[in-house]
Amino acid sequence: MSGPTTGGWPPLREELRGIEPYGAPQLDVPVQLNVNENPYGPSPACVADIATAVAQAAVTLNRYPDREFTALRTALAAYLSKDATASIAPEQVWAANGSNEVMLQLLQAFGGPGRTAVSFAPTYSMYPEYARDTNTRWVAGRRAEDFALDLDAARDLVKTERPSVILLPSPNNPTGTALPPEAVGVLCEAAGDGDTNGIVVVDEAYGEFRRTGVPSALELLPSYRNLVVTRTMSKAFAGAGLRLGYLAAAPEICDAIRVVRLPYHLSAVTQAVALAALRHAPELLGKVDDLRRERDALVDWLRAEEYDVADSDANFVLFGRFADRHAVWQGLLDRGVLIRETGPDGWLRVSVGTPEEMAAFRAALTDVDGERA
Amino acid sequence: MSGPTTGGWPPLREELRGIEPYGAPQLDVPVQLNVNENPYGPSPACVADIATAVAQAAVTLNRYPDREFTALRTALAAYLSKDATASIAPEQVWAANGSNEVMLQLLQAFGGPGRTAVSFAPTYSMYPEYARDTNTRWVAGRRAEDFALDLDAARDLVKTERPSVILLPSPNNPTGTALPPEAVGVLCEAAGDGDTNGIVVVDEAYGEFRRTGVPSALELLPSYRNLVVTRTMSKAFAGAGLRLGYLAAAPEICDAIRVVRLPYHLSAVTQAVALAALRHAPELLGKVDDLRRERDALVDWLRAEEYDVADSDANFVLFGRFADRHAVWQGLLDRGVLIRETGPDGWLRVSVGTPEEMAAFRAALTDVDGERA
Repeated sequence: MSGPTTGGWPPLREELRGIEPYGAPQLDVPVQLNVNENPYGPSPACVADIATAVAQAAVTLNRYPDREFTALRTALAAYLSKDATASIAPEQVWAANGSNEVMLQLLQAFGGPGRTAVSFAPTYSMYPEYARDTNTRWVAGRRAEDFALDLDAARDLVKTERPSVILLPSPNNPTGTALPPEAVGVLCEAAGDGDTNGIVVVDEAYGEFRRTGVPSALELLPSYRNLVVTRTMSKAFAGAGLRLGYLAAAPEICDAIRVVRLPYHLSAVTQAVALAALRHAPELLGKVDDLRRERDALVDWLRAEEYDVADSDANFVLFGRFADRHAVWQGLLDRGVLIRETGPDGWLRVSVGTPEEMAAFRAALTDVDGERA
Repeated sequence: MSGPTTGGWPPLREELRGIEPYGAPQLDVPVQLNVNENPYGPSPACVADIATAVAQAAVTLNRYPDREFTALRTALAAYLSKDATASIAPEQVWAANGSNEVMLQLLQAFGGPGRTAVSFAPTYSMYPEYARDTNTRWVAGRRAEDFALDLDAARDLVKTERPSVILLPSPNNPTGTALPPEAVGVLCEAAGDGDTNGIVVVDEAYGEFRRTGVPSALELLPSYRNLVVTRTMSKAFAGAGLRLGYLAAAPEICDAIRVVRLPYHLSAVTQAVALAALRHAPELLGKVDDLRRERDALVDWLRAEEYDVADSDANFVLFGRFADRHAVWQGLLDRGVLIRETGPDGWLRVSVGTPEEMAAFRAALTDVDGERA
């Protein structure tokens, strides 16, 4: 019998060897439009509130934090209830260090060996890593040419593969495409029938940026017990540095996650900062309105320049098509503008920044335009 | 074919059903001696430094944190180097949200399906949960009657089970027993031979509390490439609320963990607070000296009272034996003193608190003494 770890040093699992750690390059460039950050930092008042909250929490930093983060769950539930048709209770809310930890916990609880997770490509590039890290089988269906979901094909795939977890980013990353409620409903029904009993995770990391009239999947929570809607404070709340992701779902789903969560996973400091940021929601969401207008203007400009542009309900825009997208990406970087080389071949993704940043992006793109196919 | 999740709602994995989430009861009791917290909070100067550091970090909270947490790794390496025979480089250091996330990452990278983790009971009660959550096979050997490691038996178990990960708390939780360097060396050799190629994780969560003359396993790092030494800021650094665990090991081990870590797992706030706390190390470690004296006095008192007491190099003491330990635990709780009902049957574990808290514990224990077997 050969040893389980034979074959090199260090004894990393076979399937992980030679894999580069996930993450976009962290480069020092004047205009950073590559990781869909909110370009507006918290206001001085919000910063001061955060510092005060942390100073209060730090006095008892020698004690473990509230393992159930009750105050934070209550505040998040109140915030989410504004987007929902029925009030969301604290017991329906769960949170972790970034929505990537939320996803990992969901797959630990509901995925794992012998189970399958499904998404529809192009989709968020971290999902297969969550599946790999939880030993969940990964199956990617395809979206239609316009990045919408082909509902019949999607339902067929669910019936064939019988996933225990379906991951649906809406708005989708990297395409910006929001899912209509009908699509979510059809997949909740397909996934949740007696045979399969799977959950459907609608990842609304960019939910607050959706266009007027586009509903949140939160509205469907009362209709489907197997629906999970995830959010993050990284984007609309300008808190990428905070690492706070959360979800709303049936209380039984939150209770199930409690079995696999690491105890005290949310620090007292994280809880205090998130609560302070939530107190400043109106101010932070005001900036979201600015970014939505800037996003729509960017889509219009790119279309006027005759690029292909995916409809976007997010704070980023996917555009193309380029015979050599890497050359365009590099040309922009050479001009001090960092965007993301991701998504289907021929396309590039740009985050929505300040008006000044977008002007710099437009000027740089016009400059490299000669390289366009 | 029956569905992978058939059998109830919610569709939690079979092996997780009916399991209570891990964690000691969080009760509001005057004297809390149950989760080995440091009874001394940070000083006002430290709290102010933390608040200032967070205010600075919050200005750019809209940006993702340094994914490689370079400044923090450098500061942790400098701190650890004081306990090591050879200087520890930043590339040898890794950190995560609590040493429980460090352990999970180690098992994701080096354990997992088809692999085995070994420890020796009584041992830290979270370890089997990390193994379960990473689908790693769990094997627990036994410690000797005095809670020391029976080295021959331990080596035999390693040779038989061929674990890819060996978990050795030192000082051990819940017994307080430190491992001699010879034992760590023997197990590193047994685990790391060509056939098995496993790693040995010495969990020094309570390392700073060890008695004078007891060495840290950090001294052995230059001798064994498969040795990992973990630490935490929860105990000596009075930062249970901060959730910062870390390790020192060969750089290749740190690089391997980077493949499974969630990107940006350490928030900008966590990095800032940890750096501020490290700047106050001398003050915080001064309190550790007080706690070590209080611990030794507690052991002496319990022995004078004719209890069985395990030697302790930690900030807690395991004592017994009781025919009905639950009755003693409840009797203490009724008198406002919360300790932990854990470890081998008949024993109880008490954390070392302030002199006032220990006086309250001694008085309460004397009071319930009639219930002693």
